[in-house]
Amino acid sequence: MEKIVVIGLGLIGGSLALDLKKKSRRIIIGVDNNADHVNKALELGIIDIAGDIHEIKDASVVIVAVPANAIASVTKTVLDLVSDKALVFDVGSVKVQVCNQIKNHPKRKNFVASHPIAGTEFSGPEAAFNGLFKNKINIICEKNSSDVAILKKAIELFEELEMKITFMNAEEHDKHIAYVSHLSHISSFMLGKTVLEIEPDEENIFNMAGSGFRSTVRLAKSSPEMWTPIFIQNKENVLKSLTEYIKNLETFKQLILDGSSNEVYDIMQNTNRIKNILDGIVK
Amino acid sequence: MEKIVVIGLGLIGGSLALDLKKKSRRIIIGVDNNADHVNKALELGIIDIAGDIHEIKDASVVIVAVPANAIASVTKTVLDLVSDKALVFDVGSVKVQVCNQIKNHPKRKNFVASHPIAGTEFSGPEAAFNGLFKNKINIICEKNSSDVAILKKAIELFEELEMKITFMNAEEHDKHIAYVSHLSHISSFMLGKTVLEIEPDEENIFNMAGSGFRSTVRLAKSSPEMWTPIFIQNKENVLKSLTEYIKNLETFKQLILDGSSNEVYDIMQNTNRIKNILDGIVK
Repeated sequence: MEKIVVIGLGLIGGSLALDLKKKSRRIIIGVDNNADHVNKALELGIIDIAGDIHEIKDASVVIVAVPANAIASVTKTVLDLVSDKALVFDVGSVKVQVCNQIKNHPKRKNFVASHPIAGTEFSGPEAAFNGLFKNKINIICEKNSSDVAILKKAIELFEELEMKITFMNAEEHDKHIAYVSHLSHISSFMLGKTVLEIEPDEENIFNMAGSGFRSTVRLAKSSPEMWTPIFIQNKENVLKSLTEYIKNLETFKQLILDGSSNEVYDIMQNTNRIKNILDGIVK
Repeated sequence: MEKIVVIGLGLIGGSLALDLKKKSRRIIIGVDNNADHVNKALELGIIDIAGDIHEIKDASVVIVAVPANAIASVTKTVLDLVSDKALVFDVGSVKVQVCNQIKNHPKRKNFVASHPIAGTEFSGPEAAFNGLFKNKINIICEKNSSDVAILKKAIELFEELEMKITFMNAEEHDKHIAYVSHLSHISSFMLGKTVLEIEPDEENIFNMAGSGFRSTVRLAKSSPEMWTPIFIQNKENVLKSLTEYIKNLETFKQLILDGSSNEVYDIMQNTNRIKNILDGIVK
């Protein structure tokens, strides 16, 4: 039996466990600080057995799916314990810090820094589901720091989940992801906050919220446990993206104040090309 | 035959035409400045015949589904021409200006100011579809300015489309909708703009755009023709909502800069309650 240990049984760890369980001759061992998560994961059949971190000595694969602020320390503990042939990978949304903090670890080559671009606004084991990763991108960072055989093992596993794999250095990853993912979450959280503050009558929000507001504010349902350490850890890039975003909002505000219809129109028309990009028609 | 004239054959006008066509003994006449829209609406079977604005003399219902900056003038022209028993309603996203501009019209009582909270990010007759309005809210403003029988006719028609009806004064409508709808569009457009500016390599956006970015930026695909006059016409409320939004973004930015994890966490957790509100569980 191949032993796979999943540390952190939330949406991502739980969904990985569910997908990996489908192959026979594997046993999925779940580890989580939160006993409720472990019990729920057992009850939902997400994991085969509950374990603790010391059971990873003979694991073939160890997945670190904990919040961003815990990834580096958990990964160090895991690397201290695993065998020479084990694959250890994380799934965090920030990559520089974890790569830096483990770069001198004697078992650095057993680690693959990965970021599957997949998720929903929900969290915890109840949010886990089969197929979350299908056709999604997985970004592997600093691949040359991983052992060739270990990296191959990781790629095979991600391909089993039908993910597409791309490679980046950690700095590039953290910069781009701040704009394309982290900024979206902040813009959505602040939209939710602004509307909640101005609308003491919550029924107004419910009644007037067209599907537009619903989709724009969707990420404001996301987990603060997960997102707080991401924003703090990727501070420099997040602040830069926020500064640009606020600058654009200020400019647009001034154009509306001035009644500059043509400029307001042009900015929106130019931004419409996001449609083709998201449809995959790259110019 | 009951004659229904739809002026403006975009997403909203076209979808209304499609739904209203389902009842027999009705003829749907389409009017649009844009000849391509008229031809497309005929080709797609959205309207029965193409007409011009002078054919509304014996219409039973006239729907004004034109961009916000044209609603008041088109409505005035329509009211000048219609019979005493005709129902005329608009579907605009801003209500104060149209109500003010027609308030002294001798046929004001034939008009019902309405705002169906329904739409998608797409536009034009090709975007129209059956059932867009089902289970959606329709806000009727200044109902006391409409004739009782005309208002009843409007309500019956909206109920035929399975809409839920609420009433508001125009000022309240424009204030609330600025926060719950117009601000969402601006936050989404500016998010799209910010990401497009920072990512010269469009493939990065496509690859890194998880479903989170996709939904947050969805409204940035919306029509500049439709939204420019809305922002300009609802200027005062839109500017207020933007000021609040930017203030919240600045505060959040400062907290991240300071590394104030607890405050960042608390703000997000408090905003999470938008989830229950959108699910219709009003506290």
